Amino acid sequence: MPKFILGIDGGGTSCRAAVAAPDGRVLGRGKSGAANILTDPDAALANIEAAARSAFAEAGLAPEAIAEAAAVLGLAGNNVGDAVNYVRTRLPFADAVIESDGLIALQGALGDEDGAIAILGTGTIYLKRLAGKVSYIGGWGFAVGDLGSGARLGQAALQECLLVHDGIHPPSDLAASLLVEFGNDPGQVVEFARLARPGDFGRYAPRVFEYAEKGDAAAVRLLRASAAHVDEVLDLITADGVERISLLGGLAPLYPRWLAARHHGKLVAAAADALTGAVAIAAQRFATAGGR
Amino acid sequence: MPKFILGIDGGGTSCRAAVAAPDGRVLGRGKSGAANILTDPDAALANIEAAARSAFAEAGLAPEAIAEAAAVLGLAGNNVGDAVNYVRTRLPFADAVIESDGLIALQGALGDEDGAIAILGTGTIYLKRLAGKVSYIGGWGFAVGDLGSGARLGQAALQECLLVHDGIHPPSDLAASLLVEFGNDPGQVVEFARLARPGDFGRYAPRVFEYAEKGDAAAVRLLRASAAHVDEVLDLITADGVERISLLGGLAPLYPRWLAARHHGKLVAAAADALTGAVAIAAQRFATAGGR
Repeated sequence: MPKFILGIDGGGTSCRAAVAAPDGRVLGRGKSGAANILTDPDAALANIEAAARSAFAEAGLAPEAIAEAAAVLGLAGNNVGDAVNYVRTRLPFADAVIESDGLIALQGALGDEDGAIAILGTGTIYLKRLAGKVSYIGGWGFAVGDLGSGARLGQAALQECLLVHDGIHPPSDLAASLLVEFGNDPGQVVEFARLARPGDFGRYAPRVFEYAEKGDAAAVRLLRASAAHVDEVLDLITADGVERISLLGGLAPLYPRWLAARHHGKLVAAAADALTGAVAIAAQRFATAGGR
Repeated sequence: MPKFILGIDGGGTSCRAAVAAPDGRVLGRGKSGAANILTDPDAALANIEAAARSAFAEAGLAPEAIAEAAAVLGLAGNNVGDAVNYVRTRLPFADAVIESDGLIALQGALGDEDGAIAILGTGTIYLKRLAGKVSYIGGWGFAVGDLGSGARLGQAALQECLLVHDGIHPPSDLAASLLVEFGNDPGQVVEFARLARPGDFGRYAPRVFEYAEKGDAAAVRLLRASAAHVDEVLDLITADGVERISLLGGLAPLYPRWLAARHHGKLVAAAADALTGAVAIAAQRFATAGGR
């Protein structure tokens, strides 16, 4: 059994780490920059190490002792073999398991119970656990997936703003507020969109919620279409017998009232965050591995 | 007045040229490769010159005589100032006017009459002419526009294939036929889509029509949604008093039966093609310029 275990939650904007005793008791936490193993694996490695060292320091441990730790990392892109292999062989830990960012979030939200999570952020992905078996739904990315996500919703809002500009759709306060931001020049919207990454589109999603709450017809229409995509996945998940669903991600606080009433009774708050989930998985995994 | 006029239709797959007498009587035609001034202006220039020389040769004229011609070029991307300036100053003609690919198509389809064209291809754009005044609708490109286009329809079909794979949508023959092409591996669909350009998505659009004709429910749903986007633009155009609309572009032969019945009576076949339109504009423009 390792002397210390590490839970690591690496994401596109930051990387968080928690060092714990082998039983899962957290001793210290640390944070660093982005850990995206697909777009920049070397920066991800550096930030994973920095977050881990910082967690050890906060625990009053020598940062070099990370080399004796066994880690569970939850990372986006964990299903892309090349990136994972590159990172796995270069991690500065005694032992490490790379899981998906979704799995550590599921563990954090539900503990060891059955249920599901809907991660509603820049992208969307759903995980469910039934009789202990975890399965994934969606999560295919912006180009042909991520329906209901912030990126798709923000993109739809910019598209709406051009439809209004052309007179194809009636004026809307949402569209007007967006077009103003681009100097009332649709060409600037197009130029932005041409180079925009999903996160750039996603920044406009909260505004759709904001205008929908005020009753703007276009915002309500876009948001209902977006929520309908989420609803149909929740229908599938509940049809399988899932009774508890936690919404996670940046849009989680905004979405509930737009989802179908049939789902409201199943929504439960997450018990804990993804970092806690990573620590919990590490405690289980390495205790088992050690034959305890 | 110039001795010869040239009409040039430069597109993303080929460039066509026609040399004519100043009155518009065509003397010879030529064709060459892609003339996309945005993605490769130097190749576009080379292909514009090659098509022009080839037209002169077919007319029994010396290819060098293109230097004495006055040309009207219809080019996609004509609204992007930098690209146009780069190309305009390097054209091998005595005089040249760069217009949009849409404008020469409008002239070809309608002659000098009022009316509209809907270009339904990889992208979508609409032009209308009322009391001689031309205006554009749509044409904002794939990222936040081109609703109803082949690219958007093909993208929707690939997305559908992932929704079926996940069990979110019921099985469909369209989805199955697509997934087979990607080795029944949704990851391959995602990888394709991540790098796909609009034309790559657009290649799947005719299949949606094909399966919709056979009654596949998913294909019918996707196509109805796509046609509804076209219908709402046609509504706008006809509300302005347009009585004649020509559908152009690769999807033009496929779309009519899917459009709302209220538009069927206004659809008319194009009188001539875009190259003919470019020659006609050249005849008008340079005759006027010469003060005739």
